[in-house]
Amino acid sequence: MKISIINGPNLNLLGTRETDIYGNKNFGTFYEGLKSHYPNIEFKYFQSNIEGEIIDYIQKEGFSSDGILLNAAAYTHTSVGIADAIKSIESPVIEIHISNTFSREEFRHKSFISPVAKGIIAGFGLDSYRLGVESIKALKDV
Amino acid sequence: MKISIINGPNLNLLGTRETDIYGNKNFGTFYEGLKSHYPNIEFKYFQSNIEGEIIDYIQKEGFSSDGILLNAAAYTHTSVGIADAIKSIESPVIEIHISNTFSREEFRHKSFISPVAKGIIAGFGLDSYRLGVESIKALKDV
Amino acid sequence: MKISIINGPNLNLLGTRETDIYGNKNFGTFYEGLKSHYPNIEFKYFQSNIEGEIIDYIQKEGFSSDGILLNAAAYTHTSVGIADAIKSIESPVIEIHISNTFSREEFRHKSFISPVAKGIIAGFGLDSYRLGVESIKALKDV
Amino acid sequence: MKISIINGPNLNLLGTRETDIYGNKNFGTFYEGLKSHYPNIEFKYFQSNIEGEIIDYIQKEGFSSDGILLNAAAYTHTSVGIADAIKSIESPVIEIHISNTFSREEFRHKSFISPVAKGIIAGFGLDSYRLGVESIKALKDV
Amino acid sequence: MKISIINGPNLNLLGTRETDIYGNKNFGTFYEGLKSHYPNIEFKYFQSNIEGEIIDYIQKEGFSSDGILLNAAAYTHTSVGIADAIKSIESPVIEIHISNTFSREEFRHKSFISPVAKGIIAGFGLDSYRLGVESIKALKDV
Amino acid sequence: MKISIINGPNLNLLGTRETDIYGNKNFGTFYEGLKSHYPNIEFKYFQSNIEGEIIDYIQKEGFSSDGILLNAAAYTHTSVGIADAIKSIESPVIEIHISNTFSREEFRHKSFISPVAKGIIAGFGLDSYRLGVESIKALKDV
Amino acid sequence: MKISIINGPNLNLLGTRETDIYGNKNFGTFYEGLKSHYPNIEFKYFQSNIEGEIIDYIQKEGFSSDGILLNAAAYTHTSVGIADAIKSIESPVIEIHISNTFSREEFRHKSFISPVAKGIIAGFGLDSYRLGVESIKALKDV
Amino acid sequence: MKISIINGPNLNLLGTRETDIYGNKNFGTFYEGLKSHYPNIEFKYFQSNIEGEIIDYIQKEGFSSDGILLNAAAYTHTSVGIADAIKSIESPVIEIHISNTFSREEFRHKSFISPVAKGIIAGFGLDSYRLGVESIKALKDV
Amino acid sequence: MKISIINGPNLNLLGTRETDIYGNKNFGTFYEGLKSHYPNIEFKYFQSNIEGEIIDYIQKEGFSSDGILLNAAAYTHTSVGIADAIKSIESPVIEIHISNTFSREEFRHKSFISPVAKGIIAGFGLDSYRLGVESIKALKDV
Amino acid sequence: MKISIINGPNLNLLGTRETDIYGNKNFGTFYEGLKSHYPNIEFKYFQSNIEGEIIDYIQKEGFSSDGILLNAAAYTHTSVGIADAIKSIESPVIEIHISNTFSREEFRHKSFISPVAKGIIAGFGLDSYRLGVESIKALKDV
Amino acid sequence: MKISIINGPNLNLLGTRETDIYGNKNFGTFYEGLKSHYPNIEFKYFQSNIEGEIIDYIQKEGFSSDGILLNAAAYTHTSVGIADAIKSIESPVIEIHISNTFSREEFRHKSFISPVAKGIIAGFGLDSYRLGVESIKALKDV
Amino acid sequence: MKISIINGPNLNLLGTRETDIYGNKNFGTFYEGLKSHYPNIEFKYFQSNIEGEIIDYIQKEGFSSDGILLNAAAYTHTSVGIADAIKSIESPVIEIHISNTFSREEFRHKSFISPVAKGIIAGFGLDSYRLGVESIKALKDV
Repeated sequence: MKISIINGPNLNLLGTRETDIYGNKNFGTFYEGLKSHYPNIEFKYFQSNIEGEIIDYIQKEGFSSDGILLNAAAYTHTSVGIADAIKSIESPVIEIHISNTFSREEFRHKSFISPVAKGIIAGFGLDSYRLGVESIKALKDV
Repeated sequence: MKISIINGPNLNLLGTRETDIYGNKNFGTFYEGLKSHYPNIEFKYFQSNIEGEIIDYIQKEGFSSDGILLNAAAYTHTSVGIADAIKSIESPVIEIHISNTFSREEFRHKSFISPVAKGIIAGFGLDSYRLGVESIKALKDV
Repeated sequence: MKISIINGPNLNLLGTRETDIYGNKNFGTFYEGLKSHYPNIEFKYFQSNIEGEIIDYIQKEGFSSDGILLNAAAYTHTSVGIADAIKSIESPVIEIHISNTFSREEFRHKSFISPVAKGIIAGFGLDSYRLGVESIKALKDV
Repeated sequence: MKISIINGPNLNLLGTRETDIYGNKNFGTFYEGLKSHYPNIEFKYFQSNIEGEIIDYIQKEGFSSDGILLNAAAYTHTSVGIADAIKSIESPVIEIHISNTFSREEFRHKSFISPVAKGIIAGFGLDSYRLGVESIKALKDV
Repeated sequence: MKISIINGPNLNLLGTRETDIYGNKNFGTFYEGLKSHYPNIEFKYFQSNIEGEIIDYIQKEGFSSDGILLNAAAYTHTSVGIADAIKSIESPVIEIHISNTFSREEFRHKSFISPVAKGIIAGFGLDSYRLGVESIKALKDV
Repeated sequence: MKISIINGPNLNLLGTRETDIYGNKNFGTFYEGLKSHYPNIEFKYFQSNIEGEIIDYIQKEGFSSDGILLNAAAYTHTSVGIADAIKSIESPVIEIHISNTFSREEFRHKSFISPVAKGIIAGFGLDSYRLGVESIKALKDV
Repeated sequence: MKISIINGPNLNLLGTRETDIYGNKNFGTFYEGLKSHYPNIEFKYFQSNIEGEIIDYIQKEGFSSDGILLNAAAYTHTSVGIADAIKSIESPVIEIHISNTFSREEFRHKSFISPVAKGIIAGFGLDSYRLGVESIKALKDV
Repeated sequence: MKISIINGPNLNLLGTRETDIYGNKNFGTFYEGLKSHYPNIEFKYFQSNIEGEIIDYIQKEGFSSDGILLNAAAYTHTSVGIADAIKSIESPVIEIHISNTFSREEFRHKSFISPVAKGIIAGFGLDSYRLGVESIKALKDV
Repeated sequence: MKISIINGPNLNLLGTRETDIYGNKNFGTFYEGLKSHYPNIEFKYFQSNIEGEIIDYIQKEGFSSDGILLNAAAYTHTSVGIADAIKSIESPVIEIHISNTFSREEFRHKSFISPVAKGIIAGFGLDSYRLGVESIKALKDV
Repeated sequence: MKISIINGPNLNLLGTRETDIYGNKNFGTFYEGLKSHYPNIEFKYFQSNIEGEIIDYIQKEGFSSDGILLNAAAYTHTSVGIADAIKSIESPVIEIHISNTFSREEFRHKSFISPVAKGIIAGFGLDSYRLGVESIKALKDV
Repeated sequence: MKISIINGPNLNLLGTRETDIYGNKNFGTFYEGLKSHYPNIEFKYFQSNIEGEIIDYIQKEGFSSDGILLNAAAYTHTSVGIADAIKSIESPVIEIHISNTFSREEFRHKSFISPVAKGIIAGFGLDSYRLGVESIKALKDV
Repeated sequence: MKISIINGPNLNLLGTRETDIYGNKNFGTFYEGLKSHYPNIEFKYFQSNIEGEIIDYIQKEGFSSDGILLNAAAYTHTSVGIADAIKSIESPVIEIHISNTFSREEFRHKSFISPVAKGIIAGFGLDSYRLGVESIKALKDV
């Protein structure tokens, strides 16, 4: 089983940036823990600040992954291109957010990704990613 | 550990109603499976078509539950009163949806509950409830 | 043949309330006349000021009635839950209004029920209900 | 008793055009049936694709008809001029629609005619016209 | 002289809930003080989380009370039905709010009740109710 | 000197229609008076309920008239085509209204004609036309 | 017969300011001509850049003038206070504009004064004032 | 104890202007009664039609008054400057309206003052001012 | 092969009207050239300023033409009726514009025709028509 | 003669992705055919999923190409930067779309590119590109 | 060289009012420092709470100053009149704000002054004024 | 002292592109002058057309620069990602614009960067950058 995790802009600063919203946990540490917890799953990880590179990666992984966990961060609210990429591929995409975007600024309430995602998980801190893995596992079990 | 599950209007018809959107699984059957799967968790279940009864129940459970899974269904999009109830209590509330509300009618994109919920899980069919249980367990582990 | 008539909030005051808009005819008297006029139709009548009780009743009658005449009054303009109930059942629902809602306040121009109703009859005073009965009879004749 | 029926643009194609929405019944055939069914009513019929000709006809019939059944079709949503004509005359005008316009495109939800019509009947196929005749008969009986 | 006080959803938690906004005074204690202060006024009190029960109570008291103090809380912003009930009765209704709703979330700035209320008193904590009593007394003195 | 007067839909009913808004003076009588009052001006008059005929007439007169007084009535608020015709011709067009359109329904506040008219005169009853003649005379005197 | 002319902010710069829009004619010179042209009318003139002083003046003249010509300039688009003053007085107020405000910026299309004015004259340069005088004379003749 | 009363534009015409909305009571007479009723309170009164003079007066009284009753009339709906002045001072400001502004024109529903006022009292005629005095007395008693 | 060309309001003035936008080429001359260039295609041409006549013509040609080139001009932005006619027929309709409507006024950005047209060609001057012919030829070749 | 073709995000998946909308033809195959069909034209082709690389390429080709065919796909609806690039260069840009964007989601109706493009061709499948070549050839012939 | 500084409403309270937003520095002290720092520049200073007086002053200085630094405070967001005054004069006007108005309430994001100002400097505390002086000096050097 | 200057899309064409708006000065030449003028400041310069590369650079410089001058050009109006990057770093960011964006197209009035910038300087041509340097120097002096 293969799961791809894609993080969007500024998530490379996780643990440093706005820790009151995103927490002070480093993604690298969390990711190592996640991999240990699911030894039978092959994980792939990608982070970019460039919208088009995220599209590239979705296209690249979208025909072989069993599921993609996508936290598109700021591009969630502005990118028609990422949404189009999701519609073009075969793997189910789960929209992930660390914070509850609906309790933040108005412009973060709009997501171009939600309508084309399989499901949405938001607000559980980094645990949102683990719940995403759980959701993909369940999809495969059906 | 105690978790309350609250289902809003028309969810008593689950398995019968609009099966292309909500699936044809009966909630009762699913609920029995959920309880067996988590034998150490005490579950409570409530369904009502009446907004005010849901508020009553949130108030009743909101100071003793370890978490509430709330699928407010239609009231998600119109009820300021349920949102106020969530703000009045101590237990964390997880917003649950069976379908991906963002791929449906425009008026289902607005949720009064999202800004006051701890987190949101939507689009995974009945498995959304199980992921909700997982999320509460993780909150307690921290 | 069985037809259910459901009246929403404040319609229990008909004949008393805002008689310039709704007329001064009591619904009870009208209803008796309607039943005499259609002796071969079994009528059921329900009125409630509670949104959720209207949902309950729609669910209860919605699989055995040949048609439902629904005047949801104020809930017409705010209730996603009643609209969802209509979508969940099998009986055709006719939206009925005594007054012409479009010649009144702006917020009465929006109906959540119209898009899911079979048809709409508005503006004919209590005669709107009789036209509703006629419409259901014709639906059955097809 | 005299009733005028006015059909707006493209309704001359009824039975041919978009049969999934409007049905495949020809208006001529239906109209003959209607006339036979109400032998004591004098019917007049007019169809035009030209907004101003509909205004002309409303003015012409609006002081001698006992009622006008108006299906303004596309002009329903755009014509201030037809609405003004209705306000200028004495005969009551019933707004008729074959389909349920509220379950179609957003721009069909707005009607300039509704606020100035006596009543509205929509969604019953060609039977909407018969219900319209019934409504005018009842208005006269009062 | 008879005055009815109606409290809407979640106000049963007053003194517990969001004390930074609503204060930490229990309504029961305040109400006893109010009754002592106006020994010649007969007070009636009703609280419900259910919109339709508030409509029921307004109808019940609305023809015999000298005035109604209505704090509809969350239903203030969403209930056409309560507004319709106010229009149906004879007693003047004073809209009461503990907090200044205009310094809170945008959706609390809209009130369906304000246009049909006799007057509005907001922002004085529980003293808003006493000012409401004063206002009804003055109405009666005219 | 030649002045064309163009009246739009329903103005042929002037003196009959909605006399509280438009007055009970017949346009024919007024027009005869106007012609006597300005014996040196050649007047032309046209009325139609058909938008395209008004466009035709504007095109026909728009290169030889010294000015056009246009009361487009309902088409004022909806016709891009008449506005385009005004931009295509050489004669100055004065927008005329009998009533004060800004104290009427919201949709009458929008005029497609105003931005392309030379000037606007509204609210003076039939005297608006005489003021329009005065305005054209002054334009020619410059 | 007495007519008051009130000019709003920046109109004291007429003939200097934005001459492509307002022309290069000085108001003083025009005003002298106007007075000579109507020797039997008593004119009063007032200009201020201060909203409240215009309100003061409207109140002062509004019970003795036969009519007021008001060019409120920028305050046209923002002043509820001037509109309220117009509603408070007895003299008819004619809204005057030198330029065609509808062919300028969007925010100049909204007028708080139009709905409470007797009539509107716009776009004829300084001749708009003379037409205003003509309109008041006609009002008095009726 | 010192209370300042500030009345905005056109309120100097009270008793004359639009008596169906504002009543026919002169403010002077009412004010004398108010002072007699509260002999231990020092009252100050100010009325102006000029927005900036109201700002001046708020600044002047805002550090020594125990409370300010402000009926900003038309400026309620447009003045950011008065709202800023209220935020700059120390005395609590009570927003007062004679009529129920929410049952009037749409543009009167927006208040820049409400979000920065201590409380709001509207709709009780001149008695709104007395209730305002009562509210300040209660604030001081706490 | 048969192609119909339909031109809407004011296009009869082409070459005269607003030559900075539409160019100074006469349509007649261009049309002769087009016919010579495609000797094997049977062309039909229709121009009208009347919306309903355009609907008539679309209905007339829409079952025998291989394609229709429709430049509805002003009606593009307002006519639901023409859009409905296009949906009623069988021939593909190509929306043609001489100018780039998107670089002009805001109200010209909305087209009722675009959603129901086969394709859109805009901005190439009269050459837009030739490209339209090319597009229909290609459709037929498939 | 030199023509540049630029394809935006996800168009590299053409023939694979959403074939019901975009068809199942591979762009490479089509492009070879296009080049053979116009042997005297030098074509250049560029595809990128990265907005900024498209800007780079427009800048690079925009001073030497005779025309650019730009299908910006998703960036059509969001990119001010690409629109600014088009305004900065000398070559005419033709906006190309394979599908009819106006018959799809609301957010695809807005194009930042349209107002700065020379012309627009949409809805003809891959043939839109050939029509674009034709349009540039005609521009050069003038 | 002559520079005029104009401060709008409530800025006379600077150093007292809302010190968390505006800082606790008194403008008088700052102004003395500014003058010492630029001994060769003649400064003029004006503050008023009255919109019209600011217009008066802009007119007075606007033909002799080398530049005007205008902090219109609250009137920034509501005054069409001040914007019109700026357009009427010859001196360049620099819009100055102490705070970053875009990180404050929504209604402070709209400025009527920005479109007609030469440039905008905001967010640097009182140093915004010094930067404004620098900007005018540079304009003169060109 | 270290200052970073970041220029967004199309600013590499400065001096070539739209010279009526941006001037005909080359940025390179200006930059050399700036460096000579402030010999004690270490400048760094970066330009990219790619949104994500600008985010990368802000992250890279944002913890060591004393201040960043950011002219994000087109991305100003669309990039949530750049705004998020600014919130993530420690260096103050000054938003710079060459032209006055508020006197241009509507979509350029919205800036995602303004709410998170320290201050804004716009409209002074290339001198905006020098004023930005001045502002950072002053911030450091405090």
